[in-house]
This record gives sequence, structure tokens and C-alpha cells, in this order.
Amino acid sequence: MDRGRSTERITQDIETLSGPEYTLSDEAIRRYAYTQEYRNTLDWFTRELETIGFDVEEDPVGTLYARNRPKGEPVFGLGSHCDSNRNGGRYDGTMGVVTALEVCRLSAEQGLDLPLQLISFLEEEGSGFGQMLLGSRIVAQRVEEDDLRERFRSIDDGRSFWEHAAAAGYRPEQWRECAHVLDDLTGWIEMHIEQARVLQDTGNRVGLVTAIAGYVHADLLVHGRGDHAGATPMDLRLDPTLPLAETIVELERLARAAGKGTVGTVGEIEVDPGLINAVAAEVRFSLDIRGPVDDAYRDVAAEIAAFAQETARRRGMSAEYRERQTLPATPMDERIVAALEEAARATAEPFTRMHSGAAHDTMCVADRVPTAMVFVPCKDGISHHPDEDADPADAALAAEIILNAVQALARA
Amino acid sequence: MDRGRSTERITQDIETLSGPEYTLSDEAIRRYAYTQEYRNTLDWFTRELETIGFDVEEDPVGTLYARNRPKGEPVFGLGSHCDSNRNGGRYDGTMGVVTALEVCRLSAEQGLDLPLQLISFLEEEGSGFGQMLLGSRIVAQRVEEDDLRERFRSIDDGRSFWEHAAAAGYRPEQWRECAHVLDDLTGWIEMHIEQARVLQDTGNRVGLVTAIAGYVHADLLVHGRGDHAGATPMDLRLDPTLPLAETIVELERLARAAGKGTVGTVGEIEVDPGLINAVAAEVRFSLDIRGPVDDAYRDVAAEIAAFAQETARRRGMSAEYRERQTLPATPMDERIVAALEEAARATAEPFTRMHSGAAHDTMCVADRVPTAMVFVPCKDGISHHPDEDADPADAALAAEIILNAVQALARA
Repeated sequence: MDRGRSTERITQDIETLSGPEYTLSDEAIRRYAYTQEYRNTLDWFTRELETIGFDVEEDPVGTLYARNRPKGEPVFGLGSHCDSNRNGGRYDGTMGVVTALEVCRLSAEQGLDLPLQLISFLEEEGSGFGQMLLGSRIVAQRVEEDDLRERFRSIDDGRSFWEHAAAAGYRPEQWRECAHVLDDLTGWIEMHIEQARVLQDTGNRVGLVTAIAGYVHADLLVHGRGDHAGATPMDLRLDPTLPLAETIVELERLARAAGKGTVGTVGEIEVDPGLINAVAAEVRFSLDIRGPVDDAYRDVAAEIAAFAQETARRRGMSAEYRERQTLPATPMDERIVAALEEAARATAEPFTRMHSGAAHDTMCVADRVPTAMVFVPCKDGISHHPDEDADPADAALAAEIILNAVQALARA
Repeated sequence: MDRGRSTERITQDIETLSGPEYTLSDEAIRRYAYTQEYRNTLDWFTRELETIGFDVEEDPVGTLYARNRPKGEPVFGLGSHCDSNRNGGRYDGTMGVVTALEVCRLSAEQGLDLPLQLISFLEEEGSGFGQMLLGSRIVAQRVEEDDLRERFRSIDDGRSFWEHAAAAGYRPEQWRECAHVLDDLTGWIEMHIEQARVLQDTGNRVGLVTAIAGYVHADLLVHGRGDHAGATPMDLRLDPTLPLAETIVELERLARAAGKGTVGTVGEIEVDPGLINAVAAEVRFSLDIRGPVDDAYRDVAAEIAAFAQETARRRGMSAEYRERQTLPATPMDERIVAALEEAARATAEPFTRMHSGAAHDTMCVADRVPTAMVFVPCKDGISHHPDEDADPADAALAAEIILNAVQALARA
């Protein structure tokens, strides 16, 4: 296989889709549903796919899918998303769709004519309506009609998703039809940049995802008592930053002790009133606790909530635990992972099995279809930022591995 | 002495000065230099003082002083400030000037005719120009001309202190003359609400201040590395919230261990980027470390800076310590404190010696004049807030104690 040629095409495609017609910002990649720049991006993929004989359609709200077999015939699914974070880079999502396109090209060029369906899901990043994985959640029917009609509203103008979809010429009233996008899939592979440092730090060019982490998102509120920082003796304080501090330290200990890929993060801290000369009255902080093993990370979440409440109580304060959202881990299909592993081994390039700590559209596909994911490194783990950087040569390697795995699965 | 009558007058005065002519806000007391509401407040004090035979003047920038002896004759100084926090209550500062006025009234009524000078310092709270203790710092010549001409600028319109003072009819170019306000003082007593909970929690009606705490204000910046919270294993993280947490816990331990009234507070915490699903790249947090014993709190500041740097280093990160400001402790004059103590004991009301954790104009007076302060409780320690509450009966008790102390000092 001419991997150099794939590298060139992927490089060129990424370059093209970083041009001014495809981003709302001069300084970052910024594209999201129902903007002209997003429309241009779908049109570009449509032209490229039609060139190699694919029929291209969009579901009733705008997820693009393209196939080289009539509807009703089994196809293998490949793809990702091509919307971006508002301050995004060139690779997140888009390089996954471009790599899927490259697999389709290779299949055609080499006369393999594998039965394939490419999907580019709508609004993975939530830049339009603040809702992550929106297109794939609609496909998976993980939303309610009222979400689309009323609750999900544009960050830019506050109008509903429904209104925007209709104004862009879609048929939101047919949103339940979006489920049909997955009807004929025998399997699904999404390629994506890793968005972390594991591949770089372990010297691997490819990661074969065995599970997508589940997570708990929650807040802890510690209610203390605001006081003058100079005039209040240490013994008379109810300072909520102390339970905060003890909880941060304990969360690290619990996550490490849990192992099995469990991680725990305090990413947001809000101190009220937040003045240098005031003992805080209240502190809110976020918890992001994840892992590929549901019992492991859920135990950490339960333990840290209990710890925070106990340490606050011991100091005469109280703490409230408020869960925002929780989602179970998504195991990948071992048969597809094994096929990818065999194809990866055949390349003699360094690869590893790993889990995905980040959420991906594949979580929604996995409801109905055997799925897997392939990661490629991104420099220093930087993502969701204009500095995001990844190597099209790694994407070309992934394309080769995916093509060979799909071929092997088709033969089996 | 008819303490009930003093209570009534102080109640009435506070009520008057909470009226709509004296505050810019419907919901709080908000008055500061060079506003009509502040002008009205000075005019009210002027009328009250003239009624009891005092000559009232203002220094070249607006600190009010009034005396019942010709210039050049020794007088005992009493007062505080009558500007407020922008979201202030009725008592902070103002009740101190009202109580000083009450002492002047009692001295006149009882035919004592003690030689007195009342001072109401300009801009203690910094609401006009973001500069605390501004009037008393000008009196103490703790500013430079460029501060007044250029650096100190109005929060409301960005124009300089100098411009505002001139526009209000003052003579800022004569600011060095402000030093003369203290020329004839043989002593100084400021009454103020405590702004903390020590008196309430210990069941005392009066606090005799033995020292005003010195302090170190500083920031610690911990430089970590921003990463995806889901995708970055615990072992690959440089999470700056961990050194933050360990430093908060250690600061409490160090301040308690130091004793001698030392306190340490982390009141501001800023997490960058501050997202639930992102390991922070950087954390900034403030340190407020105070106490009446300079060596004690300064040692804590040095130790916590070293601790933060060491704990960051141990985790592969770095921490920077940046001092904002430091001011030494101000001891009160033992002779005046002893006179106040004897007068307090004579009332048979519960009182205590204590230090002031908060800064006060008295710190600037103490450069040249033997000084002391008297605290009265404020409910639950709440201050700088419309809910601020204090009992005029305690102020009346303080007035009696101050009058008797000044009388005893005059006789000695």
C-alpha cells in the first residue's frame, strides 16, 4: 500500500478544510451546524465522496452519510464529525472523517469495493447549541422532542435547535427518522486524535480503543462562614477552602488507589466572595471522575462525596454533593478490536491497546452496532485549541490498518 | 452619666446618616469622597460640632477636623472615618465618628471642657479611588505626589484623585499641609466596630486594642500543564490544584502553630482554564497572613512560600511567590490602653484586651501620636455589607469609657 500517497492526500484535505471558507474565525477552526462554513465543509465531503461513486445523503437534521451500496444492503461504517470546538484546531473530528474518506478511496483504488458507509455526525462539540454528541444522540434517539424544540438553544442567538434546523432547510419534525442512519451497519470504526499524551509519552503511533470511559460529573458545595481574614482567629473560622483542599488531595489518592484507568479531576473552583482579605463563605468545585470500569470510578465518586461531607462536618461545616450527569463506560467490540490489532501488527509500527478517557460519537453508535475506535497521537495532548497538531502520516497508517481490518472482517 | 441618653443620640445620628441624602444607593450605605452624599455627611457633622462650640475645618484634600481650642494648644484626638464601602452598612467608620461626637457632647454637657479634636478621615474604604486609608495616609505623608496626581484614579470615571479633589474645591497642591492635622494631638482614640466575631463569641461589650496586626498580602502561582481530564492518566498529570490543596492545608497548620494571634487565609483562587473536564494548566491563589507580632506572621509567610515551591517541585511543577504588599504591626500606646482599661473596669461591663486584625486609620496616626482603639461588637462579625448591625448602646458605653479615659489622662 502506498502510505506516502495517503499521507499527501490527508495533508492536502486537512489544509483545504482549514481555509477561510471552512472556519468562522481567523485564528482558530470554528465551525458548527447551520453556518455557511459548516455547509461548505459538508459540500466538500459530498463532492469528494461522489467522485468515488458514493451516494451522499443527510439525515433530517444534518448528519451526513454516504454509501457505495443501495439502502438495505449491509455496509461497514466509518467516520467521525467535522464540526469543531469554537476555538478549535484542524484535527479534532475532521481528521477522522478525512481518514474515513481515505479508506473509501483506497478501497476503490485497490478494486476492493468493500461495502462502506461514511458518517459525519452533526454537532459533536456542542459549539452551536452547547450540547455535545448532539447528532449522534439524535441518531441513537437519546434526546426527547422537547429538547430539540425548546431546551437546546443556540449559543449565538438563543433560538431553538428546531428553528435553526428548519431555517437551514432540514426537517426536524422527522428527527426520529435519523435512527435509520445506522440501520445497515455491520460494524463501525471511528478514527480520532487521542487528545491526550498517552501515545506520545509511550512512543506509539496508534491506539486501539478497548472501551470508552464512563464518567460522573458532579459538584461539591461547601458551606462555610464568610469572615474578615484579618480579624477572625483561626479557632473561630468555618473556612470552606479547607474541606476543598482536603478533598482535592483525597481525590488524587482514591483515583490512584482505584487503578483500572480511573481518573479524578477538580477542574472548576469558585470561591465566594473571592477576596484576598475575606475568609470564604462558600466554595463550589467540580468533580470529573472517569474510567473504563464502571464500578471502579463510581466507587471513587461515592467515596469522595462521603469524604467531603465528613471532613466538612468534622470542621463544623456542611457539604452538598450534586451530580450533573453520569454515563456508563462503553466497551468496544472485541472482534473488531482483534481485527484492528492483527492489521496493526502487520504494519510493524508501534501500537497499543488503550481506553478512551474522552467521550466520542462512537458511544451512541455502540447502542446498536459493534464498534471500535482508533487513536493517533496529537502533539503534547493539546486539543480544542488552535495549537492542536497531529501527523497525517499517522492518519495514513490508521487508514491502512482500518482498511485491512474491515477487509478481514468482511472475509470472516 | 446618662448612658441611655447617649444611646438615643447615637441611634438618632446613625439613623439620620442612613437617610437618602447620605448614600448613593437605595440598598446599602455607599458614600465616598467628592460625592454630594459625602459632602452632605461632612456638612451634618460640621453643624453638630459647631452647635457645641467646635471650630470645624477641612484639610487641603477633605479630611475634616474640629477642635475646641485654638491651633497650637494641645488637644486629644478622637474620630474615625465616615465614608463607606460601596456595598456598606451603617456602622463601619460612621459610628466611630458619631461616638467621638458624643464624647465631645458629653464633655460640653458635663462642663468638663476637655481639650478635644475630632477627625473624620477621608477615603478610609477606598471606594472612590481604590486606595484604603487614603486620607490618613496623606496626613501621615505615606503617599507621593505622583500617586495623587496620576496613579490614584477614580473607580467611577478614571480621572485622577488630583482632578477630583480640585473639582470639589479642595487644594490638592497643598497636600503636604495635611500633616498639620496631627500637630497638636497629645493622644488619639478611634472607636470602631470590630468587624469580626471575637467580642460576640466571648461575650464582651468592649474590646481594648493593644496592637493592629501587620500583614503580608501575596499571590502564589502554580504552573502545571493543562490536559484532558478524561484522557490523561493520573501518572502523566501536572495538576496545579494539588500543590494548591496541600498549601491550603499547610497554611492552616503553620498559622495555628505560630500562635500569637497569627492568621492565614486563602481568599482568592483562580483556576485556568477552569473547566469541569480539563486538568488545570495554572492556579493562582492569594495569601493574607497577619498578626500583631511581626516575626510570627512573617515567618509563616516565608514558610508557606517555601512549602508551596517545594510541593510543586516535588510534583514536577513550579510555583512563584509574588508579594503584593506588607505592612508591619502597629502597637498601641500602653498608657492610653491602661487608662481605657481602668475606665472600662469602672463600668462593670464585660470587656477584653485584644488586637485588631483589620487595618484602620489609627495605623497612620500612630506614626506621630500615642494611640489606642476601642472596639464594639458587630452582629455575627458581618461588615462591609448592608446587613452590618451593631448596638448603639455599646457605642454609648464606649463613649463613656473614652470620656473617662481622656479625662484621667488629662489629669495625669
